[in-house]
Parts: sequence; C-alpha cells; structure tokens
Amino acid sequence: MKTHFKKIALLLLVLPMFLYADEPAKVADPVAEKLAEIDTLKVGLDTLWVLVAGMLVFFMNAGFALVESGFCQAKNTVNILAKNFVVFAAATFSYWAIGWGLMFGDGTPYYATEGLFFLGGADNSPLTGDAYQGVYSSMNWTGVPLLAKFFFQLVFAATAATIVSGAVAERIKFHSFLIFSFILVAFMYPFTGHWVWGGGWLSSMGFHDFAGSTVVHSVGGWAALAGAIVLGARKGKFLPDGRIKPILGHNMTSAALGTLILWLGWFGFNPGSTMGVGDGSVMAHVIVTTNISAALGALASTITAWVILKKPDLGMILNGTLAGLVGITAPCAIVSPASAAIIGTVSGILVVLSVLFFDKMKIDDPVGATSVHLVCGIWGTLAVAIFGYEGSPAGVPVPSLGTQITGILAIGGFTLGISFILWFVLKLAGGIRVSEEEEVSGLDLGEHGAEAYPDFNIRVHG
Amino acid sequence: MKTHFKKIALLLLVLPMFLYADEPAKVADPVAEKLAEIDTLKVGLDTLWVLVAGMLVFFMNAGFALVESGFCQAKNTVNILAKNFVVFAAATFSYWAIGWGLMFGDGTPYYATEGLFFLGGADNSPLTGDAYQGVYSSMNWTGVPLLAKFFFQLVFAATAATIVSGAVAERIKFHSFLIFSFILVAFMYPFTGHWVWGGGWLSSMGFHDFAGSTVVHSVGGWAALAGAIVLGARKGKFLPDGRIKPILGHNMTSAALGTLILWLGWFGFNPGSTMGVGDGSVMAHVIVTTNISAALGALASTITAWVILKKPDLGMILNGTLAGLVGITAPCAIVSPASAAIIGTVSGILVVLSVLFFDKMKIDDPVGATSVHLVCGIWGTLAVAIFGYEGSPAGVPVPSLGTQITGILAIGGFTLGISFILWFVLKLAGGIRVSEEEEVSGLDLGEHGAEAYPDFNIRVHG
Amino acid sequence: MKTHFKKIALLLLVLPMFLYADEPAKVADPVAEKLAEIDTLKVGLDTLWVLVAGMLVFFMNAGFALVESGFCQAKNTVNILAKNFVVFAAATFSYWAIGWGLMFGDGTPYYATEGLFFLGGADNSPLTGDAYQGVYSSMNWTGVPLLAKFFFQLVFAATAATIVSGAVAERIKFHSFLIFSFILVAFMYPFTGHWVWGGGWLSSMGFHDFAGSTVVHSVGGWAALAGAIVLGARKGKFLPDGRIKPILGHNMTSAALGTLILWLGWFGFNPGSTMGVGDGSVMAHVIVTTNISAALGALASTITAWVILKKPDLGMILNGTLAGLVGITAPCAIVSPASAAIIGTVSGILVVLSVLFFDKMKIDDPVGATSVHLVCGIWGTLAVAIFGYEGSPAGVPVPSLGTQITGILAIGGFTLGISFILWFVLKLAGGIRVSEEEEVSGLDLGEHGAEAYPDFNIRVHG
Repeated sequence: MKTHFKKIALLLLVLPMFLYADEPAKVADPVAEKLAEIDTLKVGLDTLWVLVAGMLVFFMNAGFALVESGFCQAKNTVNILAKNFVVFAAATFSYWAIGWGLMFGDGTPYYATEGLFFLGGADNSPLTGDAYQGVYSSMNWTGVPLLAKFFFQLVFAATAATIVSGAVAERIKFHSFLIFSFILVAFMYPFTGHWVWGGGWLSSMGFHDFAGSTVVHSVGGWAALAGAIVLGARKGKFLPDGRIKPILGHNMTSAALGTLILWLGWFGFNPGSTMGVGDGSVMAHVIVTTNISAALGALASTITAWVILKKPDLGMILNGTLAGLVGITAPCAIVSPASAAIIGTVSGILVVLSVLFFDKMKIDDPVGATSVHLVCGIWGTLAVAIFGYEGSPAGVPVPSLGTQITGILAIGGFTLGISFILWFVLKLAGGIRVSEEEEVSGLDLGEHGAEAYPDFNIRVHG
Repeated sequence: MKTHFKKIALLLLVLPMFLYADEPAKVADPVAEKLAEIDTLKVGLDTLWVLVAGMLVFFMNAGFALVESGFCQAKNTVNILAKNFVVFAAATFSYWAIGWGLMFGDGTPYYATEGLFFLGGADNSPLTGDAYQGVYSSMNWTGVPLLAKFFFQLVFAATAATIVSGAVAERIKFHSFLIFSFILVAFMYPFTGHWVWGGGWLSSMGFHDFAGSTVVHSVGGWAALAGAIVLGARKGKFLPDGRIKPILGHNMTSAALGTLILWLGWFGFNPGSTMGVGDGSVMAHVIVTTNISAALGALASTITAWVILKKPDLGMILNGTLAGLVGITAPCAIVSPASAAIIGTVSGILVVLSVLFFDKMKIDDPVGATSVHLVCGIWGTLAVAIFGYEGSPAGVPVPSLGTQITGILAIGGFTLGISFILWFVLKLAGGIRVSEEEEVSGLDLGEHGAEAYPDFNIRVHG
Repeated sequence: MKTHFKKIALLLLVLPMFLYADEPAKVADPVAEKLAEIDTLKVGLDTLWVLVAGMLVFFMNAGFALVESGFCQAKNTVNILAKNFVVFAAATFSYWAIGWGLMFGDGTPYYATEGLFFLGGADNSPLTGDAYQGVYSSMNWTGVPLLAKFFFQLVFAATAATIVSGAVAERIKFHSFLIFSFILVAFMYPFTGHWVWGGGWLSSMGFHDFAGSTVVHSVGGWAALAGAIVLGARKGKFLPDGRIKPILGHNMTSAALGTLILWLGWFGFNPGSTMGVGDGSVMAHVIVTTNISAALGALASTITAWVILKKPDLGMILNGTLAGLVGITAPCAIVSPASAAIIGTVSGILVVLSVLFFDKMKIDDPVGATSVHLVCGIWGTLAVAIFGYEGSPAGVPVPSLGTQITGILAIGGFTLGISFILWFVLKLAGGIRVSEEEEVSGLDLGEHGAEAYPDFNIRVHG
C-alpha cells in the first residue's frame, strides 16, 4: 500500500510539469524551481566552507616557515624560507599530477587504480552518495565540486612534506629535500592515505582519524625521523664529552607568530575536515575541542618545562601548543571538550619529555618536529579509542585500541621503511648533507648566495 | 488561464501531504522536508560566520603579541610573547570553567546563578526566542549551536586580558600577570559583561554597546590603568629633573604587522557581533563603518602627530588606527558611515593627546594601551548616544547620553576598584614587580632564561 | 483524532494560497514565506563571501608592507611601513568620497556622471538584473548590499596604490607619495576601471579581465614605472663604470611572510571576484587555477634563477610566486588548470628576465613591482585570449587578442601619460625626492625621526 501511495504522490508531484509541458522552458513550476535553489545553496555554502578552510590550512605554510626559521640560526634563514616556499609549490604540482589520484582513485583496498593523473577520472561532483558517478567514490560523502575537494586535500598533503623540513634543517642540501618532498607528496603520503581516507583497508577496519593525526602528522613525523637519523646531528650539537649544546633559535618573534598562525590554520584543518557545514554543530564542536586541547597543551608544557627546566621556556610553550593541536587532530570529532582537555594536557607533557628523549638518543631535530608531529600524532590516534564516545559528532563507532594501533603501525612501518630507503638512495646518489664549511658559514651563503639580514650584524656560530 | 494552472499545480503539489498524513514520521512530505532544509541551511550559514569571525578575533592574539613586543625593548620580547600565549591558553580554561556561565547564565540583573560551570546548564540551541529552553537565555537571539556561541565569546574575553598585558609590560612578574589575567577572565570581565550582554540591568536600561567598546576594551583598559599605577613606571622613563625619556620599541615591523592583524581581526570583532548573517546588510554596514573609522583614526593621528611632534610618527599612526577601531566598536551598527568618519577622526586625535597626557601624569604605559582601549572605549560608548540614529542596523532605540554614561561609570568603577584591590593583594603577597637588576638586564633572561634574538647583537639599555 | 486535526490544520494552512490568490501580497502564505527565506539566505551567503574575500584582500596590505620593507634597507623601514599604512587609510577616504562613484556610476562609456560622491546615488541592492533600480547598474549582476560591493571594490582600489609604493621606495618624500596615491585612487584608477568593470567601452568590446591583471595590477604598474623613471635611481645603484650594485633587502623573513600573505590574499582577490557563491563551481575553479599558477610561477622562477644566476635566489622565488598570481588574475575563470600551469610558468620566467631588463635600462625598482605587476599583468591579459575556452566558468565569449591588446594599450597609455604628468607636476611643486643626505642616512630619521630597530646595531649603507 505504502509504495502505491508513494507512486501516486510522486505522480501528483510531477504532474505540474506536464500541465506546462508545452512550454517547459518558459513556464517552470515556481515552487519546484525555488526548492531546487535550496540544493544549490547547500552546495555553495559547503564549498565556501571547504575553500575557506583550505585557505586557512594553506596559510599554515607561513606558520611552518616562521616556526622553523625562528627556531633555527640566522645564517640558515634564507634556506629555510626557500625550502618552505618551494616545497608547497612542488606539492601543488605533484599532488595534482599524481598524489590525488593515488589517494582517492577507486581501486583495491591497498592502492588506487583509476583516475590516477591530473584529476583525469570521471566525476560528477557535487552529487553525493549513490548519485555520485565517478572514480573518486571515497569522497562521495561531501557535496562540493571536485576542484574544491582537490584544493582542500592538496593543502593537507603539503603539510606532511613541510613537517619533514624542520627535522632536517640547517644541514640538508636544498635539492635533496626537494626530491624527497616531491616523492613524499606524489607517492608515499597518498599511498597510505588511500588506506584510511581513500576507502582502503584501514577504513574498512573502522580505523578513525578525523583530520589526520596519523594520516598527515605522523606520516610527516616518520619521514622526518628517518631524515634526521640518516643525516646525523648538526655539527657541535652533541659534544664528545656527552654534553648537549643547545643551538638557539634566532628569532622567537618569528617562532611565536608562526605558532599562532598554525593555531589559526588548525581551525581550517580540523573543523574543515567536516568538508561541509550541515547544521554547524560538528564544526562548532570540533573548533572547541581543538582550541581547548591547544590551550591545555600550552599550559601543560609551560608547567612541565617550569618544573623540569626551572623556567617557563617559550620554545616549550610553543611546541606544547602545537602538540595539543596535533594530539586532538584525530579525535576532535569523537571526544568531548573535557576529554580534549585531557588529550591536550597529555600532549603538552609528552612533547617536553620527547624533546629531552630525542636529545638523549642523539637524534638532532632542530625544531622538535618529531616530538610534536610523530609522538603526539600517535598519542592522538590512540586517544580516539580511549576517549571516543558513541553518538559523537564524528558519527562513527568508537574503534578498538587494537584497530588504532594497527593503523599506526601499518602506516608508520610503511612510511619509516620507505623513507629510510629513499634517504639512503639520495645519500648514495650524490649526498644529502652540505659540506662542513657550508654548515659552519651557513646554508644561506652556500646554497643561495644570500643573507637574510644583511643590514644586521649577525653572529655566526661555529 | 496561467494563474489557474498555477493554482492547480500548487494544489497537486501539496496534496501528497494529506495522502500520507496517517504515517507522518515514516513517509515525510517531500516539500515540507525540503522546506525544513532551509532552517538547517540558515543555522549552518550563521554558524559558519560566527566561527569564522571568532577565528579572526582569535588571530588578534598574534596582533596584540606583535604590537606589544614591537613597542617594547628587545630584551623583553620572549617574556611578552610568552605572556600573550599563556594568557589566551589560561583564558580558554577559565572562561570555559567559570567565565561563560557567570556572563550568560540566567539569574538576577546583577549576577548569574544558573549554568555556571563548564557550559553545564540546560540548552537547546540553536533554537531561538521562545523556542529556546535553557539557562543561557540572554543569548537566545542568535540561532547557532551553544559551542559556537562559546567560542565567539571566549575569544572576546581573552581580548580583555590581553589589553592589560601591554600596560604592565617590561616590569611585571610572569606569574603575577597570569594570576591577574585568570581572575579577570574568570570573574571580573564576565561579571560586568552580564550587566550588558547577559541580560542584566544595563541592558534593561537600554545601554547599547554593540561589540564592546566598554564591555571589552574599557574593561581591559581600566584593569591596565590600575596595573600601570600600582606597578609604577619603568626605571629611567621619568627622570628626576622632570624630563621624560622615550623608551623606544625594538621592532616597528612587528608593531605595524601586528596592527594590520588587529585591523583584520576587528572585521571579525565588529561585523561578527551580529552572530548571524541575515540578509547581510548589518554585516556590510558594520564592516564599512569599522573600516572608515580605522582609516580616519590613522589619518587624524598622522596629522595630529605631524602638527604636535613635527613628524608623522609611525607609533602614533598605528595607535591612531587602533583608536579608530576601539572607538567604532560600540557604535558600529547604530551610526552612519559619515558619523563613523567623525568618530574615527576624534579617536585619532584623542589617542595622541591621551598618550601625552598619561606621560605628563607619570603613568607609564609602554604601548599606550590605556589611551587606545580605555580613552577611546569611553569615547566610542558616548558616540552611541551622540551619533546613533533611529532605524539603524543595530535595530535598537538610541540610548540617552545619561544611559551610556551610567554604563561607563558603573563598569569602570567596578573594574577599576576590583583591579586596584587585586593588584595590591598580589603586591603584598610576594610582589608583582621584577627586581631592578632583572629589569635592567631584561625579563627574557630573568624570567625565562632565554633571548629572543641570540644571533643578533642586541643593545641592552639601562 | 490527533492525526485528523493535523490533516485539517495542514489543509487550512495551504488553503489561503487558493483563497487569496488574487491578493498574494497581503495575506502571507507559510510556504511562500518559507520560500522567500531562500532569497534572504542567498543574499546572506553571497554577502558573507564578498566580505570575507574583501577581508583577505585587505590583509594584502600586510603582505605588501612586509614584501616592500623586507626587500628594502633597514634604514627605510619605518617610512615604508608608514607609507603602506597611510596609503590604505587615504584610499578608504578617497574611494568612498570620489573613486567608487567615478568607477561604477552610470554615465557614458567613457566616464561616470551619476552617484559620484560618498555612495550618494540611488540604489536598491541587493536586487539584481532588471529588478535593480539605481545608478550603479554596472554592478547589478551581484546580489549583495551596496556597502558590501563598496568594501570589496575599495580594497581592490587600494591595491593599485600600494603597488606604486614599492617602485618609488627608499627615495620618495612621504607627502609626495600620499598626494599621488590619493589622486590615483580617487581619479585615475576608477576612470579606467569604469571602462572595464563600470560598463564602459572596453566591456562593450568584450575585453575580459576577471579580477584585474590590467584594471588593478598593470594600472599600479604603469604608475609605478612612471614614478621610478621620474624619481631616478637610488644613489649608488648604478655605478659610473656601468656596473650594477645590488642593494640588498634587509629582512627576508619579512619578504617571505609578506609573499605568503599576498598568496593568501589572492584567494580573496580572484575567487572573490565572483562576488557571489552560486553553486561554488566558479570559486573552486578559480582557486585552483590561481594556486597552480602561483606554484608554477615559483618553480619556474626558481629554475630560471638557478640557470641564469647559478643559485636558487629567494628574492626571485618570491617574485616568481607573485608573478604567477598576477598573471592568472585576468584569465583565472576562463582557462583550465593546465593552461594555468603554463601561464604561471611563463610568468615565473618573465619576471626574472624583466628584473634583469629593467636593471639594464637603469630603471631602479627596489622591489621589482614593475616586473611583477606591469609585465605579468600584461601577460595575463593576453593569456585570456590565448588560453580562454568557450564554456568556461567565466561564462563569457573568449575575446580576440586584438580586443585584449586594445584594452592594455588604452588603459596603459592613459595611466602612464597621466602618471608622468602628475609626477612632473609634483616634482616642480616642491620636489618629490628626499635630499641626498637624507637618502644616505635613511628616510626613517629624515621623514619620521625614528628608527625601526633601535636595539639592533644596524649597518647603514652609503
């Protein structure tokens, strides 16, 4: 009976069309036409948000450039700024040419096989769900144009490469970093990204990573760790007698501004990962959990540094903020504000301990990228299982700790392994580290024939 | 004929409603369902705007950090950046834990009594007006989720604390400032805020302050004034022979960038205080009045400084811009663009005179925070009554000058009084000012054991 | 019973449509009322986007200030920052008072005659098309309030003046620049702008310039070129023996941050020139072409500089990015992403060659503004005809190369001619260049009696 009624209702609904069928173009049904505008408005609103969120994430490039250069020495500033610029430019090309297709093209649970190059596959976005007909079906849940999806995912992909930059700073050859970054964004990042966000095997398992604690941050972190190890420490960092000589950042104004820009950018990163506005409730929830975690990360690292180092160290405050942001990235939509406070607090403590730990291990990461993005990326991914609740804004079942650990290990193992191989290959093929003389005099002169601050009297440390 | 067809078409269109009326929950009416999407879209659009505006206001933290550190000496940069960071982090916690509830919880016209802690009260946002059922009913005019309201109000609350930072810079103990800020954001700011935006007695009187010339800026300004007085001037600022020695800001690039970031942030502060989009006309009006006032503030301070100081002083240009922004904050939605030009011009003149006045009074405010936020905050609140017109976008009756003065005095008296008490208590309990040696060598070394620019040869002034 | 009541209620609810069909305006119909909300939502959404895009373009002021000051010497920093500040403030006033009316007022194909001052003409925005009744009918295609249109166009107009600032830096008198800027924004820019965006003769010809490669950037570029020529080169730039002495920028951190801010701002500049959201597809298309062109501009200039100058020069990388952005500004909505890649690549090569060319011609442009904004502005305008395709998101026929050249020559000839006259008049009336002593010691001391970095030991170059 019910279906009959439906049929009749539909018939009645569409009848007006036929009444006017003689002049369909001229006299459309005004109500139906008006109602169709609702769909256009919805697509437009969602697209606006996805693009604005993407712009905020794009602006994180400025944040990373400032944090990295601020935490490093004045003599390497031009090099660091150039690296950060070119890495995003190269990422734009490589993710457009290859990365997007590898990540979101349909295929097997392990890799994509369709629509691989230059957004070239069939696609009828912004249609969603069953109405979607195309080869990027893992993204069929968001009703925005294909190019909007691409822009948002591109700025994410570039983030992963930028994370590496900090850990290998002050000693890597400019072109070695560019080659590694290109391969990371074109192949490595999208390959594991496919497993989670491209409809692959980890997503089928129920692995949950809302905005990329693992997919983006720990991938960047593993690649960074491999690079820092293969490169070795900066000259003079670890003294023969076992002492550790701090190499101070040259510009804390840059570092602090950069961190605030990153915090702002994260309001695109996390709330933007809704890739749609809906009734606004998920966005609002995510922005609050994100902000609370960042704030508590800052407070926890302040206190931890005060206790351990006896002073409220600004570098630790900044890294604590970033730690809180990385930690909440995976769980932001599946945990409560109160849980976000705990996640941020733990992140802020973890990052201080981790920086000290890597120093002890004689792994030299000038900006603490590994501590922030890898260690807290792992923690955030675990926090999904620990603090997630049913009926959360994420709208997914809470995964088990085992599921989350599987994802962390699979993506981490793959990325760390390939990264090691790639760094070693680059090392064999011409070397990845600048000469000792160049390291001492600075990469700005050696690699770029330039100075960042020629009107200032800069001290160059041996 | 055509209109008859239309009638029939419409009738056919709505008929399905009645056919399925037996099982309304299961078989929804497609037209009504579609129409319901309009409400969702509206909530989504409003939420998007409130969150984006909140992000812009959040970014003002970077502006304040840069303006304050740029206007101060290099040797205190780390301290100032750390203060600005931690104050926002602490504000996030204290406003979440206590401030929001005290400000917007239902209660008496003088203080809130319900939903006091951690957003814990009943609430069915985004429903509005009579449909709203909850304890934060003074905010029932905006149709966005509770967490969106909270985020927007939080970034406002943090602003008030950050204003204080500038006036007490270069001599206050790090932890004293943190304690004061915490109490300001948790108790003082929301207490008087309740009177105006929380449905309290000043709002009942018709006191109008659209975006917070008084509620935010002059509250910060009064607290700053009390702090500057209780702390006393920086060593060497006022010489025994009566001369005033200017203590120059170390980085005008920082100060100028910071001011532009604040200007940008104000486009969230003022237009965002609509807390909804509507037909866009209020937002558009407010952004134009805000921008005109800022621009005229900059021009007026340029000319005033040129006339009085014989040079177009950049510090005065920057403070003139901020003065124009503070001045238009209360009246932005109730005055015309032409009135905004006058308000900005007066603000730009006032701020120059005020900076000179406070110097004469031997009250040392390193960044001019009192002149900008307090003096122009008062002026802007008065301007509501002077320039407001009936039928303005604010949609409220123009209050009398007496009403506005009542609000200024009540909030000012309360905040100044409590601030004095609090600063004195902190002074008695361990002191709020660093030692003379530390002040000379810089708070960066004394409080944080760090330097902002270790690769540069910094001059440290006695 | 209840469901019967519901049925009756619904029937009663829809009945009015039919009963009152004769007088629809008086008795509101709930469905029609709800449908009317769609129009409000659409206006609100479009206004939100126009304002947010305008904010991003506003923020370009920070980008320009940082790029210009970063590329110049430390001793002129206060002057450059002050110039950039006051030029936007003055532009706000002059475009409000005169510029907007001259650009968008109805009139002849050559100049406007109606609604000339202070937005004073009749206007019933946000109504569009035939429903629009007012004197700014060239803007009747966008359904946002008049003040939103104004804000967006204002920030564009200010950009043109800011471009000039860079080319005349380090030697121009503060007040001369202000007077020129005021006249540029009040008269020159809107005069030629009327021909293209104000419904004038070039738009009738089919000239297409989506976001202003010619209307904004090359206008600024022509005025800059005239200024650089009339002023002459900075002392010591071109040596008597024919060698060119590079005058290094004092702060590459500023320059790089500024460029990233400009890149971000361009996401308002180009995608915002839709002045409406629609179904989001044009915005998404434009942001992707814009970003690809910027990225390829950066990569192409990196490689070109590497080949010609033997090093990946950061200054060239930054200018290459800006070149790619200027180049795509006209064609962003009429070309494919692949064409955008070509346009950006050519821009990145062009800018390096152009900087070297202007140096050979002994035209001294401290920041390369002419190479970026004029040369690539022309290239982008030609690219419209070369790469445009029918059925593009721009929704216009592809203009011929001749049409585009006509526009470039007409606007260029007018702007260059008037600029030369104006610079010469200013030169005769008191001079536009600071004294040689002031140039050597820096404009900061001479014009402003201030230093940008008083705590640093700055080297002042002869």
